[in-house]
Amino acid sequence: MGSESVKPGFSDILAAAARIAPYAHVTPVLRSSSINEMVGADLFFKCENFQRAGAFKFRGACNAVWNLDEKAAANGVVTHSSGNHGAALALAAKTRNIPAYIVVPEGANPAKLKAIEQAGGKITFCGNTMQDRDNAAEKIRQATAAAMIHPYTHPDVIAGQGTAALECLQQSPALDFMIAPVGGGGLISGTAIAVAGKSKNCRVIGAEPSGAADAYQSLQANKRITDIVSNTICDGLRATIGEINLQIMQERNIEIFTVSDQETIEAMRLIWERLKILVEPSCATVQAAITKNKTQFAGKKIGLIITGGNVDLSAMPW
Amino acid sequence: MGSESVKPGFSDILAAAARIAPYAHVTPVLRSSSINEMVGADLFFKCENFQRAGAFKFRGACNAVWNLDEKAAANGVVTHSSGNHGAALALAAKTRNIPAYIVVPEGANPAKLKAIEQAGGKITFCGNTMQDRDNAAEKIRQATAAAMIHPYTHPDVIAGQGTAALECLQQSPALDFMIAPVGGGGLISGTAIAVAGKSKNCRVIGAEPSGAADAYQSLQANKRITDIVSNTICDGLRATIGEINLQIMQERNIEIFTVSDQETIEAMRLIWERLKILVEPSCATVQAAITKNKTQFAGKKIGLIITGGNVDLSAMPW
Repeated sequence: MGSESVKPGFSDILAAAARIAPYAHVTPVLRSSSINEMVGADLFFKCENFQRAGAFKFRGACNAVWNLDEKAAANGVVTHSSGNHGAALALAAKTRNIPAYIVVPEGANPAKLKAIEQAGGKITFCGNTMQDRDNAAEKIRQATAAAMIHPYTHPDVIAGQGTAALECLQQSPALDFMIAPVGGGGLISGTAIAVAGKSKNCRVIGAEPSGAADAYQSLQANKRITDIVSNTICDGLRATIGEINLQIMQERNIEIFTVSDQETIEAMRLIWERLKILVEPSCATVQAAITKNKTQFAGKKIGLIITGGNVDLSAMPW
Repeated sequence: MGSESVKPGFSDILAAAARIAPYAHVTPVLRSSSINEMVGADLFFKCENFQRAGAFKFRGACNAVWNLDEKAAANGVVTHSSGNHGAALALAAKTRNIPAYIVVPEGANPAKLKAIEQAGGKITFCGNTMQDRDNAAEKIRQATAAAMIHPYTHPDVIAGQGTAALECLQQSPALDFMIAPVGGGGLISGTAIAVAGKSKNCRVIGAEPSGAADAYQSLQANKRITDIVSNTICDGLRATIGEINLQIMQERNIEIFTVSDQETIEAMRLIWERLKILVEPSCATVQAAITKNKTQFAGKKIGLIITGGNVDLSAMPW
């Protein structure tokens, strides 16, 4: 599967899981009796903060890199990213010893740049609009013939991200819900496909910051809303939902719960203090959504995709 | 074994491991390829921050509680503690459904008090000297006939703490070194006994803040130095080394490396950022000792006892 227009199916997720197995970590599922008691449900935290490069993004990037044929792979891969996908793709390319060209907007977080460089990625800076990013990546693609690996619309990326939920279902008892954060939609759409293929009775729910609720509004309006100016501390969730990602969410009847940044910060602190793990604000949205909607989740078994742990300790909200 | 004057042996550690197995977590051993690369050694982090009540202290407390005979147990347990031992003993007592009386100095950390209360411990406040603590605990002991479980000199506590290193050796390949922080000495002495019994070629090293280096100085002077006024952010390591603990260290030829608070803070940040886990300043001393003495540890396999993760997020040093 190479075209961006083809939606992945469950078999693609199974193939992705096999393809990335030699390179990706099987991350642990953690639990907290005190959080369970607090929310009155049974939570299973799928800890992708322990994934290579510190986030689930390595799964999709690795799947895309290793699904290229020999000839295409030799030209390398290119993407644009201000966050974890860039470092993940660079590291995935390193596992195959091929070049990775990462387009990064000027003013990007120095820690993220360092992670890309440490993984051997070649950085090109661009302006701050999506058009600037697309143009810069396209220019590199034409010059190098590298394969464009879009952060969330590429079907191999979607299939790779779905392996986190697949693994979580294999590691946990029968779950009633699986909750994942929604940014561009690569994770939630892969999760929707994985869960539908693996478990009949598990419903997938998305969590989105109310300050960047374009996916929520798109589902409500039944069309892609792209003109929202995001305002949230969840830096991993500011991207606009992709077209293919929205379609998958619509087909699979995915519901989205929105949460405020304040609710997210409280949930993040709860996870840090009780589970003793570092998680990004983005993934605390899933805990916030459960805490906020306790009644609906009472007594249920819930998987939470903890997306990543790449935080700037100097900029914590407490 | 109930008397405080008897030193535990390896068989006591094996017995402790069996005794606490139904109640304590088997904690994971984590690794970081980037930290390994940085120090040029192979590190195995034994994560007692994931232990019940958030610290290794639950092991010793649990062993002491479950080694009481039925009649003694019915009267409960008493201790003094400004830190993790109090909450650990309260939780251990709860597993046996017996009372726990915890003497706490006025002005103790509210988070620690809350943890003791949540575990069902009965708190009594006292003054700030060791004499105040001993007097208050003794008064409770006389009134209730509760068993006194000293935080680090009680042999059952020492044996229980040794089970962390025992477990680490079972979970890791043959280690060249095992490093643990040194406060009152319960952990380091239990570790020394466990490692000597389990592995011929593994040396035990203690890490101590230079601002509370009474154990280091006691080993140098070949007698217990008790008049040091501690000055360190490692709040878990301010206690004065116990007599029995020092004796065990002397008999087992334990070496101590001292580290500055600045070195500890840097090591703590390294662990948080690379391993994505919350650890207390106290246990970052072990990483600091390795970073500081790279040459000595080059190419070696090293176990690090990560003692706990009960940190106040509002008081981080960055």
